[in-house]
Amino acid sequence: MELWFDEMHTRNARFGLRIKRELEHVRSKYQDIHVFETYDYGNLLVIDGTVQTTERDEFIYHEMIVHVPMLTHPNPKRVLIIGGGDGGAAREALKHDPNEIHVVEIDEKVVELSKKYFPNIARAYDDKRVKLHVEDGIEFVKKNAGFDVIIVDSTDPVGPATGLFEEEFYKSIKNALSPNGVVAQQCGTPFYHPEETCKAYALLSKLFKNVKIYLAYIPTYPSGMWSFVIASDMEIKERRKKSFETKYYNSEIYESSMVLPNFVKEHCENYRE
Amino acid sequence: MELWFDEMHTRNARFGLRIKRELEHVRSKYQDIHVFETYDYGNLLVIDGTVQTTERDEFIYHEMIVHVPMLTHPNPKRVLIIGGGDGGAAREALKHDPNEIHVVEIDEKVVELSKKYFPNIARAYDDKRVKLHVEDGIEFVKKNAGFDVIIVDSTDPVGPATGLFEEEFYKSIKNALSPNGVVAQQCGTPFYHPEETCKAYALLSKLFKNVKIYLAYIPTYPSGMWSFVIASDMEIKERRKKSFETKYYNSEIYESSMVLPNFVKEHCENYRE
Repeated sequence: MELWFDEMHTRNARFGLRIKRELEHVRSKYQDIHVFETYDYGNLLVIDGTVQTTERDEFIYHEMIVHVPMLTHPNPKRVLIIGGGDGGAAREALKHDPNEIHVVEIDEKVVELSKKYFPNIARAYDDKRVKLHVEDGIEFVKKNAGFDVIIVDSTDPVGPATGLFEEEFYKSIKNALSPNGVVAQQCGTPFYHPEETCKAYALLSKLFKNVKIYLAYIPTYPSGMWSFVIASDMEIKERRKKSFETKYYNSEIYESSMVLPNFVKEHCENYRE
Repeated sequence: MELWFDEMHTRNARFGLRIKRELEHVRSKYQDIHVFETYDYGNLLVIDGTVQTTERDEFIYHEMIVHVPMLTHPNPKRVLIIGGGDGGAAREALKHDPNEIHVVEIDEKVVELSKKYFPNIARAYDDKRVKLHVEDGIEFVKKNAGFDVIIVDSTDPVGPATGLFEEEFYKSIKNALSPNGVVAQQCGTPFYHPEETCKAYALLSKLFKNVKIYLAYIPTYPSGMWSFVIASDMEIKERRKKSFETKYYNSEIYESSMVLPNFVKEHCENYRE
């Protein structure tokens, strides 16, 4: 007998991982969460049928969502992570030696399961500079400010994350940033859903002087081509060199990840809300 | 009832496309060939269980395997394509207005099925400058020479393509190139098989002054991260600007595709035969 988890990338395309066993299945207040032990990818976190994290390739997503905005800022001391309950973004952000990292995760079950099954990801929570807030990120950014870097590390714009891709939220983000602050957000796959990437780009362009889309290869995410958007009133460039080991990121990647294939560029140039 | 084609990316990971119907199944002298009509990706060519081409995303592979070496050469007039029986590489090479393109495909069934089911890919064969040779590419490069660009557009190094990833073949390639010739080869996914990419890089580095690995996002290939190797005694740089439309390639992509994530770079730096 073989057990497979298949994620539907579209109605007509799927990606499957062979499973040793189901470690946990929880219906939280917000979402349906599975943890599986796979053969090839270590432990696997699935939320509402969608791969969130695998032990094997999480380094790519977490390095790229964190080091690009953090190295754009000259000296990031106060960091806000919206979503990111697994702790991976906080783990990477700690490498920049900030004073405080606030992780605002709406679903405490994500944190709990990550601590239990993804200790190498969730170990950020052992550091005193990492403060967990179990609440809605949309509300949190209305009430708190003065962040040098904000990282929006959410699920895709369905379910509880929908509001994290709307104009009102981006206005709150802008207000919550320090004057030369930097925000980065994961924006899905521009191969299947260029409109999601282009919408975030368009909305952030109304609020910030400089906005760029960047890409990374993520094998377990749909199409393998994943997008992020970075925005700041400062020029978007790498201001510091990393002083730590990485498995994906390097200074050349910073620039090359912002080069887009024509079909993505053209979709965003022609995008109208 | 639903019909799915699933490619095993590894023993424990698979990618599946929902199928409207099987259009053809042929066991040729060399390989097992299927053509399917899919829901999302148009027609799909599968050889020995492996996705070769889909109508939806073939543009990425064909643009990247062709325009990078062709634009590295100042004036490519004689072009050799080893493999590439579907005609896609020849179609892209024609955009550079060469005098002749030789396609050396070992399996005439691939050509025949491509003409029948992938007319937009195989239309290169309608051009008189494209000459098809149904024979073994390894033998062809021993007997023919004077090519400005050679493109090795083969299946992966299992089955009939094994010899296309060996030192002896690369020596023949070197001899078959004009003095400032350029060769490019597809080299699989460095996420699952960095040793394949690094082996080609190492072997070509013995024979050519300049060798680079470059990458492209290909959604239907394993991991989505695909590698190519380009080699020449000239410096590897874009010498001409393209004068035609592309959906993926642009001049910034030329350079950015040669930037490698650390895990690929490090694997190749530490690679020993």
